[in-house]
Order: sequence, then C-alpha cells, then structure tokens
Amino acid sequence: MANPLTPDVLVDPVVLTRTLVDIESVSRDEKAIADCVEEVLRQAPHLHTERFGNTVMARTDLGRERRVVLAGHLDTVPLNDNFPSTVVDDLIYGCGTSDMKSGVALALHLAATLPEPGYDITYLFYEAEEIEARFNGLHLVAQSRPEWLRADFALLLEPTYGVVEAGCQGTLQARIRTHGRRAHPARAWRGVNAIHGAGEVLRRLADYRPRTVTIDGCTYREGLNAVRIAGGVAGNVIPDECEVEVNLRFAPDRSERQALDHVREVFADFDVEVTDSAPGALPGLSAEPAREFLTAVGAEPAAKLGWTDVARFAALGIPALNYGPGDPALAHAPDEHVEIGKIRDGAATLHRWLTSYE
Amino acid sequence: MANPLTPDVLVDPVVLTRTLVDIESVSRDEKAIADCVEEVLRQAPHLHTERFGNTVMARTDLGRERRVVLAGHLDTVPLNDNFPSTVVDDLIYGCGTSDMKSGVALALHLAATLPEPGYDITYLFYEAEEIEARFNGLHLVAQSRPEWLRADFALLLEPTYGVVEAGCQGTLQARIRTHGRRAHPARAWRGVNAIHGAGEVLRRLADYRPRTVTIDGCTYREGLNAVRIAGGVAGNVIPDECEVEVNLRFAPDRSERQALDHVREVFADFDVEVTDSAPGALPGLSAEPAREFLTAVGAEPAAKLGWTDVARFAALGIPALNYGPGDPALAHAPDEHVEIGKIRDGAATLHRWLTSYE
Repeated sequence: MANPLTPDVLVDPVVLTRTLVDIESVSRDEKAIADCVEEVLRQAPHLHTERFGNTVMARTDLGRERRVVLAGHLDTVPLNDNFPSTVVDDLIYGCGTSDMKSGVALALHLAATLPEPGYDITYLFYEAEEIEARFNGLHLVAQSRPEWLRADFALLLEPTYGVVEAGCQGTLQARIRTHGRRAHPARAWRGVNAIHGAGEVLRRLADYRPRTVTIDGCTYREGLNAVRIAGGVAGNVIPDECEVEVNLRFAPDRSERQALDHVREVFADFDVEVTDSAPGALPGLSAEPAREFLTAVGAEPAAKLGWTDVARFAALGIPALNYGPGDPALAHAPDEHVEIGKIRDGAATLHRWLTSYE
Repeated sequence: MANPLTPDVLVDPVVLTRTLVDIESVSRDEKAIADCVEEVLRQAPHLHTERFGNTVMARTDLGRERRVVLAGHLDTVPLNDNFPSTVVDDLIYGCGTSDMKSGVALALHLAATLPEPGYDITYLFYEAEEIEARFNGLHLVAQSRPEWLRADFALLLEPTYGVVEAGCQGTLQARIRTHGRRAHPARAWRGVNAIHGAGEVLRRLADYRPRTVTIDGCTYREGLNAVRIAGGVAGNVIPDECEVEVNLRFAPDRSERQALDHVREVFADFDVEVTDSAPGALPGLSAEPAREFLTAVGAEPAAKLGWTDVARFAALGIPALNYGPGDPALAHAPDEHVEIGKIRDGAATLHRWLTSYE
C-alpha cells in the first residue's frame, strides 16, 4: 500500500485528520497506521525517530532550554458502522474523528511542518490506549524507554473541544461481596440471603455525598457508583453470595492509597477487594511551558474529570494537560464526529504557542 | 435386555428399590424404565394398563365405592457419581434412592402383589418431574388423558421420611426492574444509577415479615426472597437497568392471583413482571380416604412447604397428600440415600391402609 500520508496531506490538518481516520486502527491492530506514521517521520531531517512495538517517537534535538511532549494515541474503539469517514457540511464523521485522530493530526502536522519550534519537542504516537492498561503504549514506553518521556511539560491531544483540561481524577474499582448460606426458598429461614445483605451496600451508595474539590481554580467533582451487581445461584436457591462492583472517581488531592482507605471506610464491615486503580493528576499549571501554553490558548483551564494518560506523566513528575479539537461527549459514539473549525483553531493555537518562545 | 423387574424382585420393596435405582432414568431418558414397568403391569391380570409417552397408568376396576391414585415419577436429576446403587449397612445409596424410586417401589410392589385392594387404585408412574413443567408426565396426562386422574384421593410417594405432608405452598417468580440513564462514571450526575435504585427493592425484601398460616393443623411458613440480581453495562458506565428476581412461597389459603396482588403491593411503584407461578394446595384432609390413610399411618400430618405435584390434583378438586420413605433433605444430593427400615415401614403402612377398607 502506498503511504497515504503524502506531503500535501501533511500540510493540511483537516485533510490529515480524514486520512488518518481512513486507516483502520482498532486497538491491537495499529501496525498499518504506525508504519505510515513512522515512515513520514523518518523522512523529516529535523527529527530523530524510533519505534517500540506500534508506538512511534520522533524528537527534535535543537538544544532548546526546555522540552515538551505532544502525545496522541493511534488506536480507536471498535468500528460501529462509522468507517470510513464522511463529511457533512463542516463536520467529519467517523470512528476516531474525535477520539483522537484529529488530535493526532495536529501533532503529526506540526512534526512534519515545523522544523524549528521554540521548545525541543518529543512527539509520541502510541498504541492501545482504549483497552487494558497493560497494552497501553505509554505504559510500555515508561517501562522500557523511560528516556522518551523526559520533558518539562506534556500535552495530550485528547478530545477537550478546544478547552484546556487540567489534571485528571483518579479512578478506583472495587468489589464488595456479601455472603450468606444456601437454602431452598420453601425453607428460606434455614439460609441467609446474600442479595438481601447487599441492600446495605446499595443504601450506603445512595446516601453517599461526593466531595467537590477546587485546586488551582479547577473544580473536581467526585463520585462513587455501583457499576455492576450480580448474585444468585438458581431460581430455587437462596443465594449465598452477591457481588457489587463500585467505582470511585476521586479528585487528585487524594492519593490512590487515600482513595482506597476512603472506600474501605464507606464499606466498613464488608469484604472489599480492589480490582483496579489509577492515580489522579494535579492540574500542573505552574510549569513555565504550561503557563505559556495557557497564554497562547487565551482561556482559563477546566478540570478534567475522566482519567487520561496525563496521570502517567504526573506520576513521573511531568506537568501535563489535555487539549484537543474533539468533543469528549462524542468519543466512542456511533455518530462520532469533529468540527473542521476546531481542527483549524487547534492547529493555529499550537503553532502560535510553539513559535512564540525560544 | 431382560426385564430386571422379575417376580421375586417385585415381592420385596427393598430389592425392588435397588433394582429401579439401577435402571438409569435421568429426566428425558425414561424410555427404558417405562418399558420395564409397563411390561410388568401388563402381565398382572387384575390391572388395566395404558401408556402415554413414558408415563404408564395401571388401574384396578373392582367396582369399589372409591378410587385412589398412587403416583410417583420415574425420572431422577442428573447422575452425580452416585450410580449404580450401593448398600452400606441399612442404607441404599444412589441417584433417586430418596427422590423417589423408593416411593415408586412401594407403588409398583403393591400393583404387582395386591390384586384386591379395599379401594380401586389407579397407579401412575410418570416421566419428567424434575425438569420444566411442560415436560411433566402428570401435566401431559391432565391435558390428554384427564380420565386417568379421576379419583377421590391421591397419594404422591414423594420423599417425606415417613411423615404425611399435607397440601403444598404455592410459588411465584417475578422480575422487579429499575431503570436509570447511562453516563460516564466521571460525570455520574448526568445519569441515573439503576443499581442504586434497586436498593429500595432490597430494603423492602429485608424488611418483609412473612406470614405463618395454620390450616387444618398444618402450619405453612411463607417467604419472599431475592434469588437473582443483575445489573451493569461495563466498568465505565453508570448502569441504566437492574433486575431483581424474587420468589414468593405462599400458603395455600392464597390463590395465585392473590399472591400476585401481594407481590405488586410489596413492590408498589416498581416495574413487576411475573415469570412463573404455580398454585398451592390446601391440605385436603377431609376426604374420607385421606382420613382413613391418616388412621393407618397413625400420625398427625405436617405442612408440605415445597411445591409438589399434589397441587395438580388439588387443581382438579382431588385431595392429595405426600408420603414416602425418602428423606427430602437428601433429594438431589450427591450422597442421596434411603433407609431400608423406612421402605419396609412404608410398605406395611400402605398395605394396612389398602386392605382395611372395602
């Protein structure tokens, strides 16, 4: 296949968005798109390019005082009758248009067309963000190529609809189990009904009053929710086990450990098992490139409520923000689309930022 | 295969129990045992024998004033490393020993050896009691050969450990659904959590105080229980639906309709759908053959709490009782067994009853 990422495509981030969308790249199937991206970057004489799995890193080495990362994931959620792309008026429809090939297009456009940015830039195009963390390209790079992530500031081009979203909330998933004793329903008093026992778990969830926390002007709204419940053996058995899976979204002023302690406190006297957790990230607005970026955007940041890979940079001590043209509400939706105007605005903003300082 | 139900087997209900257990007859696989039983009954000159599917009916036509039914199902639950039978001291182990080949053995022994009972007797050996009602031999006979069931009294030889169990409770299964609105857990306030909504259903179940009802000296203890709960879309979605399956066991003074009204009242304001129900059966102790049977047994009856096929006779206006040598607590258990003494006691009691009156 001829590489569709030709020079005339790379100069226009709108055309580039559509071209990237039309290279199918559902998670675990990113080889084709990574090949195309790698080839383009290797052809740029101002970049040093390497690859790890289906993650491609390209960086300038201009000896600038500070280095920033521009990062975007190459994968999408599964197709949903929304491939290839279509254009209706000023909207591009298709899988990945919002999350996040329009963001990837901004970074790839800059990588190809901006040989002398004001900061040294490390571009990261990574695999498998939409699935389990163990496959995540940034996670793998942090393990095996940690030097690729070294920077003073990182920008993730996740969908934010042109708003700067700062930090992110942490997430913790836990299973609360109740236990009982089986019996025949005709003699229910000989047993103990574990589903009835889960009523108290649901009562605590319903009574829970989540915190709202403001940090650096960004307001984080926490939440504790049941996301799954399952119990029962058969229609004629009093059940001896019931399981409620709960999810806590916590503001970045709590550590993972504190979040866990909190969940254990809410469900005191119950059997609590943590199945997954990821730390939040503080807004990270004090780093100099972050402030300069905010100036270029010319707007106040908002809190990021969902979890994103900015937390991986935060964990390494690197301030990071989310900023991208896609609408986060459209991510993973069958009618996913992106506004062409937002792509152009984003390209102009990033260009302004990256050429204002030296 | 030679028929193992030879005359010297038929005269001894203990040997007959073991022989019947050793003819494998898991539900839907009753042809072999029904063939053996039918052949034996057809050879008895005092019986008129017919077959419908794998259900065999044999009756005396002596012109007695009253007719009684003796009934037992031929099928068993699936084998569970408990086939063929073994004998340890005075216990016969094996699949179906309690539920209910020891009971079937009593009826078949009487059919073969008692040519002139005090009542006319209709013997029913039927298929598929252990599975869905639509396969049940008694159900099929009630549809297609209703005249086989005509009688003044029916005795089911289900396991009762030698006690007379009277009537049975009804059972009603219903689904209670709660509804919500999906959202991302990071923005839970945009959604409505259907699992949290089910907390109120569980609260009502936990607060429920079941009735205890005494009818004709038999005490029925009702119960309302969750037997299954399920809700949840994915780990990162606020769920929009949750379903609780509840089971009501109701005393036979309530009709199915009244039981349903009761469940709707308990779960007022919720979406309630009945998925299955079966009426109970009043104790039926006033019929003359029932009283004569109780005299022969010489003990007070107890309430039957589980649902049994006596309800099918009750629905036809025929009083019916449960009485058998097996221990109901051992039914369907891997270590299912029956006491040889209980088989001998049961045979003696039935013989006394059926030869005392004319």
